[in-house]
Amino acid sequence: MSDMNQVRLRLQQFVQLRDWARFHSPKNLVMALAGETGELIEHFQWLTEEQSCHLPVDKLQAVADEIADVQLYLIMLADKLGLDIFVECERKMRKNAEKYPVEQAKGRADKYTGL
Amino acid sequence: MSDMNQVRLRLQQFVQLRDWARFHSPKNLVMALAGETGELIEHFQWLTEEQSCHLPVDKLQAVADEIADVQLYLIMLADKLGLDIFVECERKMRKNAEKYPVEQAKGRADKYTGL
Amino acid sequence: MSDMNQVRLRLQQFVQLRDWARFHSPKNLVMALAGETGELIEHFQWLTEEQSCHLPVDKLQAVADEIADVQLYLIMLADKLGLDIFVECERKMRKNAEKYPVEQAKGRADKYTGL
Amino acid sequence: MSDMNQVRLRLQQFVQLRDWARFHSPKNLVMALAGETGELIEHFQWLTEEQSCHLPVDKLQAVADEIADVQLYLIMLADKLGLDIFVECERKMRKNAEKYPVEQAKGRADKYTGL
Repeated sequence: MSDMNQVRLRLQQFVQLRDWARFHSPKNLVMALAGETGELIEHFQWLTEEQSCHLPVDKLQAVADEIADVQLYLIMLADKLGLDIFVECERKMRKNAEKYPVEQAKGRADKYTGL
Repeated sequence: MSDMNQVRLRLQQFVQLRDWARFHSPKNLVMALAGETGELIEHFQWLTEEQSCHLPVDKLQAVADEIADVQLYLIMLADKLGLDIFVECERKMRKNAEKYPVEQAKGRADKYTGL
Repeated sequence: MSDMNQVRLRLQQFVQLRDWARFHSPKNLVMALAGETGELIEHFQWLTEEQSCHLPVDKLQAVADEIADVQLYLIMLADKLGLDIFVECERKMRKNAEKYPVEQAKGRADKYTGL
Repeated sequence: MSDMNQVRLRLQQFVQLRDWARFHSPKNLVMALAGETGELIEHFQWLTEEQSCHLPVDKLQAVADEIADVQLYLIMLADKLGLDIFVECERKMRKNAEKYPVEQAKGRADKYTGL
């Protein structure tokens, strides 16, 4: 059974063993996160939306690698800032629900500018 | 007690109520993720690394919002692709540990090109 | 008649008047560039490819704003690093032509991983 | 003497020879631009601001490659949308000058949220 706490602990050990915490200011971690997001986007740039729903196995594996890396940097960033990601998610989902009332937003991309 | 499954379920309901699943191809979700990452980076672009370690409360709150949004899109993306994020994280951490052997990587940014 | 040199000079004056050069390390400018790219991508995230070819006038104007901002930060970054963007473009285009031989790359997205 | 028109023409020929225009919807080009921006940011993520001002020659060359790629995709995107980049830059600089009045913005990062 894998969960965020287990990942976080293993990650802290990984960083500590390599003495890399010194590079991990929030500013730098945000850049690393953006770099991984860039790698993720490159896998999708020439695909149609339809193709992106049915990735071949090797491509899916490469995408899973990038998704993991984004998650890992996000965990390190939140840790560094003293934030509990899922508490923030719950809070932000309530905010998003207010920002996008169902009756106005339903089925409309033009009313959906991003979370 | 908040965890990823609870967030995922609430998120699915949020999307379903607004009939937004139609916009959520993996290609589009990756773009939305990149958009949120861009918003996150804007909070840090003029800060020194030192300043980024000590954010004022209102700035920290705004940053927490963006971290949550990145997490939410990452969950939606992984779900759409049938991936379990934390299983992928465990797998990728093993790969990262092999890519960066402690003895070669210790304390060296030049040997650390990103996860 | 507008060209890059004119834009560059006006931009230098804009920055100097506001005493903003102090914030413009290459590291920070790259972050600002990424932030603007994120704003650009948000305009396209829910559009189909077809829709992205026929933007309504107000959306096109907003997109033009973001394209300009990306260009402005790119000019500032290259300037700071002592690079002539178009000289680098010519050099990189020769490299790209070697990386993607016509006979292997023709019409194939799977052979086109990005410039 | 190299300028944008020369780069644009060479680029059109590069794309035409490889029959790649079919992949170049504005949506896809924006993604490719974001991918290159991600590659650019990776070069800077562990550098201090000071180090980013004095790149070693080989790193500078690699950074120049990425700057060129961002520029090339930006040109292709603007072309596809029928926009003249430098005309848009002039227009946007006027807008930026109004958004950031000298007397309020001078020397202040907190008043500088990005162009």
